Amino acid sequence: MRDFSQDISALALNTATLGHNLDGYGAGWPPERVIDACAARGLGGIVFWRREIGRRSVEIGDRVRAAGMQVVGLCRTPYLVGRDAPAGLDEAKASIDMAAGLGAPVLTIVTGGTEPGTKGVLESQKILAERVAAIAGYASERGVKLALEPLNPMFGGNRTVLMTVADAVRVCDMAGAPNVGVAVDVYHVWWDSALAEGLAAAGPDRILGYHLCDWLENTRDMLLDRGMMGDGVADLKVLRAAVEGAGYAGPCEVEVFSSSDWWRRDPSAVLDVMVDRFRTVC
Amino acid sequence: MRDFSQDISALALNTATLGHNLDGYGAGWPPERVIDACAARGLGGIVFWRREIGRRSVEIGDRVRAAGMQVVGLCRTPYLVGRDAPAGLDEAKASIDMAAGLGAPVLTIVTGGTEPGTKGVLESQKILAERVAAIAGYASERGVKLALEPLNPMFGGNRTVLMTVADAVRVCDMAGAPNVGVAVDVYHVWWDSALAEGLAAAGPDRILGYHLCDWLENTRDMLLDRGMMGDGVADLKVLRAAVEGAGYAGPCEVEVFSSSDWWRRDPSAVLDVMVDRFRTVC
Repeated sequence: MRDFSQDISALALNTATLGHNLDGYGAGWPPERVIDACAARGLGGIVFWRREIGRRSVEIGDRVRAAGMQVVGLCRTPYLVGRDAPAGLDEAKASIDMAAGLGAPVLTIVTGGTEPGTKGVLESQKILAERVAAIAGYASERGVKLALEPLNPMFGGNRTVLMTVADAVRVCDMAGAPNVGVAVDVYHVWWDSALAEGLAAAGPDRILGYHLCDWLENTRDMLLDRGMMGDGVADLKVLRAAVEGAGYAGPCEVEVFSSSDWWRRDPSAVLDVMVDRFRTVC
Repeated sequence: MRDFSQDISALALNTATLGHNLDGYGAGWPPERVIDACAARGLGGIVFWRREIGRRSVEIGDRVRAAGMQVVGLCRTPYLVGRDAPAGLDEAKASIDMAAGLGAPVLTIVTGGTEPGTKGVLESQKILAERVAAIAGYASERGVKLALEPLNPMFGGNRTVLMTVADAVRVCDMAGAPNVGVAVDVYHVWWDSALAEGLAAAGPDRILGYHLCDWLENTRDMLLDRGMMGDGVADLKVLRAAVEGAGYAGPCEVEVFSSSDWWRRDPSAVLDVMVDRFRTVC
């Protein structure tokens, strides 16, 4: 029987969980305070967002490691397809540079939506694969892996053209680069009865992240109403067993966007609850 | 090459498209006026909602047929699983009686959400299959087929435990009744790269409906911001070809929930646009 009260070093904080100081949410903690609070609780790592890093990537990365933790990843490239994708790949390459500066082994890709002039997702997936292939070598030279993150299908249209792990794996295959894989987020995949097949197709070397939160029974906002683990209907132990059963051995990263609940709480209390829930329900 | 400017008799109105007189939306047209407006435009049929029918099922059904159309279906049973499902199956049987009274060959099932005390969707799907099996004979005796409608995964938790056609087919198989099949709605399945496999597993006899609308690039409301065909990113011709390629030969039913746009327009104008879009983009 698996022991789910395991070492907290398997746990990582995605700073979005603390409101990442965005749009008036969060307590305004600078990265240093987040690092100290995570280290004090025995976490294994942190995932940052670009907006928190600015020109301080090397400094912040070193600070995390000095505190005994790892920079687990960086969120994220700009969109690569869809109406809101910037022209060219310069910003994507700059995000790779930032991940390398931080010492983050994984940079997450949220793809952006359906490419203008096309319908559905398949044509956009092909364009996406070409653009991923065009930056994969640049990332590889800098020691960075690229994690394609499928989003809940409700984000189709303007935010994603990857709705399932199977979608992401297909684009990995099309991109054909060894440092391109998949990020698996409970919020986006909890409902997928075919998840195990998608994970098997990915294989252990291409599962580059596992993101924890919960799906609330009554989700009031598509983007900013995620639940803390245990407060929703996602079968968290089964999901983790599936991801680890497919060979993933990396950290579990907690990423809770919650403008009406968790982002309004004291960050210290949020971290304490997060650690407790990780021990008990994940 | 398929001729997509085909006979309008393949087109059916789901009255939800006119706001179905709900919560102050819609123009308050009684069923008779809806029937006359559809017949005048050459539509083949209408799908009603229970709240519009009351005790007049036989009268309204006869009126539709006298106008040269068919009652294509009835929306819908109460939830069968989840916190909001009524106790017992009496209301479900009453909805079957209403469908039979109307002469509607198909009654749609939106399943309801994750069963209390469980997590994820698989356990709820098993309970759902038992309850569907428990009403399937009653429906069969009354000439009514039951159409399990998978919903976009964003409706997981409180509204559905079926997220894909493949999910619905699996529950059909578990229920084991010959009059149980699947309803395929563009809004819910447009994103699914595995749709063709799900439709093939259903087979021609179990695809009981095809619902048209569009997925807007920027969907502002999960429930009530559907687009009219042509205004979004769903690949409507490919979707219809997939459904008909799997053997479906029934009507195309337009179902647009749109509280901020189409429900605020004159119903006559909505019907005219609907007919035009069906001819040109579906």
